[in-house]
Amino acid sequence: MNYIMKDKFYTYIQQLQDTITSKLEQVDGTAKFQEDIWERPEGGGGRTRVIENGEVFEKGGVNISGVHGALPDSMQKYFDVKDADFFACGLSLVLHPKNPMVPTVHANWRYFEMYDKEGNIVDQWFGGGQDLTPYYLFDEDAIHFHSVCKKACDLHNPDFHTTYKKKCDEYFWNAHRNEARGLGGLFFDYCKATEEMQMQDWYNFVTEVGNSFLEAYVPIVNKRKELSYSNEQRKWQEIRRGRYVEFNLVHDKGTLFGLKTNGRIESILMSLPSHVQWVYDHKPEEGSEEAKLLTVLETPKNWV
Amino acid sequence: MNYIMKDKFYTYIQQLQDTITSKLEQVDGTAKFQEDIWERPEGGGGRTRVIENGEVFEKGGVNISGVHGALPDSMQKYFDVKDADFFACGLSLVLHPKNPMVPTVHANWRYFEMYDKEGNIVDQWFGGGQDLTPYYLFDEDAIHFHSVCKKACDLHNPDFHTTYKKKCDEYFWNAHRNEARGLGGLFFDYCKATEEMQMQDWYNFVTEVGNSFLEAYVPIVNKRKELSYSNEQRKWQEIRRGRYVEFNLVHDKGTLFGLKTNGRIESILMSLPSHVQWVYDHKPEEGSEEAKLLTVLETPKNWV
Repeated sequence: MNYIMKDKFYTYIQQLQDTITSKLEQVDGTAKFQEDIWERPEGGGGRTRVIENGEVFEKGGVNISGVHGALPDSMQKYFDVKDADFFACGLSLVLHPKNPMVPTVHANWRYFEMYDKEGNIVDQWFGGGQDLTPYYLFDEDAIHFHSVCKKACDLHNPDFHTTYKKKCDEYFWNAHRNEARGLGGLFFDYCKATEEMQMQDWYNFVTEVGNSFLEAYVPIVNKRKELSYSNEQRKWQEIRRGRYVEFNLVHDKGTLFGLKTNGRIESILMSLPSHVQWVYDHKPEEGSEEAKLLTVLETPKNWV
Repeated sequence: MNYIMKDKFYTYIQQLQDTITSKLEQVDGTAKFQEDIWERPEGGGGRTRVIENGEVFEKGGVNISGVHGALPDSMQKYFDVKDADFFACGLSLVLHPKNPMVPTVHANWRYFEMYDKEGNIVDQWFGGGQDLTPYYLFDEDAIHFHSVCKKACDLHNPDFHTTYKKKCDEYFWNAHRNEARGLGGLFFDYCKATEEMQMQDWYNFVTEVGNSFLEAYVPIVNKRKELSYSNEQRKWQEIRRGRYVEFNLVHDKGTLFGLKTNGRIESILMSLPSHVQWVYDHKPEEGSEEAKLLTVLETPKNWV
């Protein structure tokens, strides 16, 4: 086969963005994604698609970008390289539903290449994952989400699900709160060619996970989107969204990298929910549904 | 005079906390501060006072703490010292009014000592400041706040106001948004003994600023707290509060230091407003009051 991996993967995420946004518009029934095409002065750009004030989705974004050029200084330092060029592309999505019974979801699939001065590829890898952040815990939803993740993993390696679920719980740990951001899912990074897994094999795995996203999330949305909820439950959702903001602004490497290297701010911060609350020293009542969620966040569990 | 600076300053901030909270309760007219006394396992503790859902103050905290012990590793690294002990105390306050015509305010006054293994003081300094973050710009309020700051500075050194206003604008720069958090005020740090300024002189200066706080802020609150406002103006306030959250979680050294060294999270994050909004790519109408505020935030100006 004669192809260039970066073009192939960029084509894939373009198509996946179309598939996902068109399905989510159908699920929402009312709101449409607003598209913004942007260019990066140093090379490349992106296609941001944001949905707001929908019937189901209060705020969300499904964004792709493909950027290239000289590797920014902070990244040269991070990767301990000099005079490198790079190409990076990926799809990032976050969806914040209006109804607190419907979980927030995040997903990202990305590909990175680094070049020497002559333009030879000196390193390349895939990364990504998907994870679920409910406000109220429905065990069957958690099991469904993780089952779909596991099925996608198992087609490629029997150890992947265990490994990448664990990495996900570690990465989305809101350390200053001593709790997980959500129920986890999958997280993988620096997926590089080995004897067992060539880049084409990683491509197959990452796109398998990408293709599983709608199956993992949409049935949960459809099952919960019409449930009724109280003002108190909505308040709980907004307080928990505060923890989401805290994670993204304090701990998330991708967000901080974007903010500190002059990324497109509005595309990066589409991940922040629309309405958020902070209440001093808020603690749910013992034995309540809210307390039940916290127990699971404090000690991440395996759902499948 | 025979005194120990740390005891003297801690007594001062205890009294100042009483003065400020009792005046603010009077201004609010309805809500009372809720007090939480906490202890730090490694040494010291604090007295957190939080106000919520008041007639005037939607959320705010006026906290003191005095902590001591072995200097945490991250701080040893930061200060490039080894095996040091420390004492640190200070008063931190943030007030988020309900009415978008009333500005948010932040202030902090602190004192730090470092010791060698024998318990000798090897370094000591004061720091602090106060700054104003309005949602709608009333020039006379900005001038009043900065005039009070200048008056306090001028009693100690004719250059202090210019120097510390500039440092304030630099510190509260929300770099990823390319705008200031607010209108600034004063910011000073590492105020150490010199021939011109002994520690007692710095004490006199810092307490002068501390004593000026109510005069700088309360007249503005009283002038604006009964103004009427629309839902749109309230929305603008909540969006701007989002920028406040972004600054505190992404850039504020004090907040990040607290989060990463196991500080009392609820006391640190009392600085976050109660109701906050993020709207994708929000831009105020040209020529509007909202746009006028942004112009001043993009290019900080001198008000006195």
